[in-house]
Amino acid sequence: MKLTLLFTLLFSGIFAQNRDSVFIRSIYNSALTNGHAYEDLRSLCKDVGARISGSAEAQMAVEWSKATMEKYNFDKVYLQEIKVPHWERGTTEAGWIRSKKDGLVKVNMLALGGSIGTEGLLESEIIEFKHLDDLKKAKRSAVEGKIVFLNQPMDEQQINTFKAYGGCYAIRGNGAVEASKLGAKAVIIRSLGMPIDKHPHTGGMHYEDSIKKIPAAAISTEDAEILSLMLSKEKLEFVMEMDCRSYPDASSYNVIAEITGSDSPNQIITFGGHLDSWDTGEGAHDDGAGVIHCLEALRILNELNYQPKHTLRVVFFMNEENGNMGGKTYATWSKNRGEEQIAALESDRGGFAPKGFHCDGSEKQIELLKSFKEHFLPYEMQEFEKGHGGVDIGPLKGSFPEIPLFGFVPDSQRYFDFHHAPSDVFENVNKRELELGCGAIGSMIYLLDKNL
Amino acid sequence: MKLTLLFTLLFSGIFAQNRDSVFIRSIYNSALTNGHAYEDLRSLCKDVGARISGSAEAQMAVEWSKATMEKYNFDKVYLQEIKVPHWERGTTEAGWIRSKKDGLVKVNMLALGGSIGTEGLLESEIIEFKHLDDLKKAKRSAVEGKIVFLNQPMDEQQINTFKAYGGCYAIRGNGAVEASKLGAKAVIIRSLGMPIDKHPHTGGMHYEDSIKKIPAAAISTEDAEILSLMLSKEKLEFVMEMDCRSYPDASSYNVIAEITGSDSPNQIITFGGHLDSWDTGEGAHDDGAGVIHCLEALRILNELNYQPKHTLRVVFFMNEENGNMGGKTYATWSKNRGEEQIAALESDRGGFAPKGFHCDGSEKQIELLKSFKEHFLPYEMQEFEKGHGGVDIGPLKGSFPEIPLFGFVPDSQRYFDFHHAPSDVFENVNKRELELGCGAIGSMIYLLDKNL
Repeated sequence: MKLTLLFTLLFSGIFAQNRDSVFIRSIYNSALTNGHAYEDLRSLCKDVGARISGSAEAQMAVEWSKATMEKYNFDKVYLQEIKVPHWERGTTEAGWIRSKKDGLVKVNMLALGGSIGTEGLLESEIIEFKHLDDLKKAKRSAVEGKIVFLNQPMDEQQINTFKAYGGCYAIRGNGAVEASKLGAKAVIIRSLGMPIDKHPHTGGMHYEDSIKKIPAAAISTEDAEILSLMLSKEKLEFVMEMDCRSYPDASSYNVIAEITGSDSPNQIITFGGHLDSWDTGEGAHDDGAGVIHCLEALRILNELNYQPKHTLRVVFFMNEENGNMGGKTYATWSKNRGEEQIAALESDRGGFAPKGFHCDGSEKQIELLKSFKEHFLPYEMQEFEKGHGGVDIGPLKGSFPEIPLFGFVPDSQRYFDFHHAPSDVFENVNKRELELGCGAIGSMIYLLDKNL
Repeated sequence: MKLTLLFTLLFSGIFAQNRDSVFIRSIYNSALTNGHAYEDLRSLCKDVGARISGSAEAQMAVEWSKATMEKYNFDKVYLQEIKVPHWERGTTEAGWIRSKKDGLVKVNMLALGGSIGTEGLLESEIIEFKHLDDLKKAKRSAVEGKIVFLNQPMDEQQINTFKAYGGCYAIRGNGAVEASKLGAKAVIIRSLGMPIDKHPHTGGMHYEDSIKKIPAAAISTEDAEILSLMLSKEKLEFVMEMDCRSYPDASSYNVIAEITGSDSPNQIITFGGHLDSWDTGEGAHDDGAGVIHCLEALRILNELNYQPKHTLRVVFFMNEENGNMGGKTYATWSKNRGEEQIAALESDRGGFAPKGFHCDGSEKQIELLKSFKEHFLPYEMQEFEKGHGGVDIGPLKGSFPEIPLFGFVPDSQRYFDFHHAPSDVFENVNKRELELGCGAIGSMIYLLDKNL
C-alpha cells in the first residue's frame, strides 16, 4: 500500500470518528440545554395522566401524542389502529385485616390488572406462603375456602433490580391460578416493590380457561410485613371488595412519527416505548420516560438537520402492559407493507441515568454495539452487552428474524420504588437523568443509521 | 519451575481471588439485607439535623456519633479535640427585588457562610453580571454603591456535575472580594444549583484583609432567572437584611472509631467523611451519607469478624465546610503520634449509586486501584481512575507524602439538586443507593488492607 493511500485512509477514519464525536456532542448539548423532554413529560403526566389501554385517558394520550409530534415538523405523523383489551378498576376497592386482638386494620391495596371483582364483600381466613413454590406444594385441605397471601419479597441482594423483579414475577402472574387450583377464594400478593413503603404496585396477571377465576390484588410491602407479623401471632381473616371487570376489546392506536431515509426509505429503524400505562400514578417512568426519550431523540436529529440514510421511525406503542397488541400489530403490519426493519430500539426501564445499551442479536450485531462504546465513554456509559431488547419490539423478531433489538439500559436502583405504583409520577423523574437518556438514544440512533 | 509448584501458585492465586469475591459478596449482602446505614442516617438527619461547626447541633452530632459508634463493639472509639470557626446565620434574613412596575418581589435567599451581616436594611440599585470575569472587567463607576448580582449558571452541558460546579465556584468564593474592589455594597449570587428551582444554596466564601468586607448571599436559580428577566426591562433596586456574624473560634471534635490491626497496628488506613454540614436542610447527602458509608463499612467488617492486618480507622471529620480544621488537625496529630498512614479514603459526593473510585497517588498506586476493578464489575461499578481524594483527607499528603488518597465516586447527576440547600434532607436519599455505597467502601477497605 502506498504511504499516501495509507495516510488518506487513516486520516479519513480519524476524521469520521471525530465527526461522529462532534455530532454526538451536539445531540447531547441540545438535550441538556434546549431540550423539550422534561416539559413534554410533564405535560403527558399532568395533562393526560395514567392511561391504561381502553380508557378515555389512553385515547387522550393518543391525541396528545399526535399533536405533540405534529409540532416537530417530522416528515410523517400518523396513527395505526389496533384492538386492545379493556379492563377497568371500577370505583370500589378496599381491603382489611380482621383481627380478634386488634380489630380491623385497613391495608393499601390495588387489584391486579385483569382481575375479576369480588361481587360484594369477600371475606375468609387468610393463609400466608413465603414463596409461590410453597403454595404449589400445599395440600388442598390447607388452602380450600381461604384467601391466599403470597408474601415473597424481592431479593435485595440482587444488584440489578430487574433480576430481583424477575425472581418474584410469578407470584403476580401465576398466583391466582395456583391458588385457585387448591380451592382458594382469592389471592393477595406482596407488591413487587423494592422498598418497604405504603404504595401498592399493580401489574398484569393471568387466568387459565380450565381454572376457576378468583380475585387477585396486591398490598403494599409495609402492609405485607404487618400482615405477616400479625399472622405469626394469631389466625386472621381478610375482608376485601373490588368491582374491577373486563369489557369487550376496544379500538386504540399506536402513534408514529418518522423522518424518511434519503438512501433507503424502505429500510426502517424503529425506536420507541409504550404509551399506555397502568391506571395508577402517572406512568412517568413506566413508560412516559421511554416514549419521551425516543420522541426527543428524533426531534433533536431533525433540529440538527440530520438527513438519515434509512427511515427513522418513532413508535409510541399502545398496550404493552396487558396484551402487547401494539407491538404485535406493528410487526405484522410492517411485514405486510413490504418494509425491511433493519434495527429496533426500546426504552422501557425508566428515566434514570444511562448506563448503556443491550443487544438481542447475532454475535456480529453485538460486536457492532460494543464498537459504539467508545463514543459513549465521555457520557459515563459503560454497559454495551448482549441482553434484552424490549417487549414492544420483541414481535419484530418474528417478522424479521435477522433484526437486532437494542434495549436502553439506565440505572435500575430506583425503578422498583415506582413501578406500577401511585408514586410513579412526574416529580420522581429527574430532569438531567431524563435528558441524558434522550442524548444517549439520539446518539445511538445516529450511529445505527450511519453503520447499518 | 516445577509443574507442581506452578499449579500450586496458580491454584492459590485463583483461590485468593475467589475468596476475595466471596468475602466482598458477603459485605454487600450485609449492607443490602441487614444494613444499619439507612436507619443511622435517618437518626443523624432527624435526631440531630443540620450541624454547622460551632453550633449546638454540631456538638449534638459529636455526641450522637460517639454513642452510635460505641454500640458497634469496635476496639476503640474516641474524640479528637479541634478548634473550629463559628459563624451563625442569626434570625433575620430576607431579600426583595423592588420594581417600579411590579412592586416588591420577595426572593428565596441564604447568606453565604462567613458573610458579614447588613446592619439593618441594605438597599441599592442592583447590577447584573453573567460571569465573574465580566465583573472583573467592569469600571468602578458602573459598580460603586450598587449591589452586584452574579448570575453565572452552572454549565448544563458538563456531563459530570462536579465539573459544572468547579466552573462556577469562583462566583461564590471570590464574588464578594471582586465586587468590593469596585466599591459594591453587597453581592448576590445565583445559587450553585443545577435545576431551576426555589431552593437557595449556601456555601463558603472568603474575604481578604485588605479589601472591605461586604455582605454576600445566594438566591435560588428560579429567582435569579426572574431577576435577570426583570432587569432586562427596567432598572431595579434590591433590598436585603441579614444579621449573620462570626464569633470566636469554638472547641469541637473529630469522632473516631477503629479496629486495631493484627500485624501492623501502627499502619493506619483512614476512611471517613465530614460530620459538619451547612446550617440548612439536614446535611443528608453532604455529608451524612459519607460518614454513614464509612461507619457502616467498618461495622460490617467487624460483624463479619474480619481481622485486619492494618488498623482500620473511621474518622468523622468536623469542619470540612468552612475551614477544614478537622482534616488539618488530624493529619498533624497522626504524624506527631508516630503513626504511619498507608492509605486514606473519603466519601463526600453524596449517597447516590456507586460508579467507582478515584486515586490521587503514584502511577503504581493508580495501577493497584485499577487492579481492583474486576472485583467491582458484578456491582455495576466501572470507574477506577486517577482523580481527587477528598478535602478532609487532603492534608494527610503534607504529613505522609507517599500516601494514596482514594475518593468514592457515586453518580453525580442529582448532587447539585441538593448541595448546601434546604432540600438536602433524608427523604432525598435512596436506601439502596446508600447501601450500595456502604458495600463498595467496605469492599474497597478490605482490598486495601489485603493488598497494602
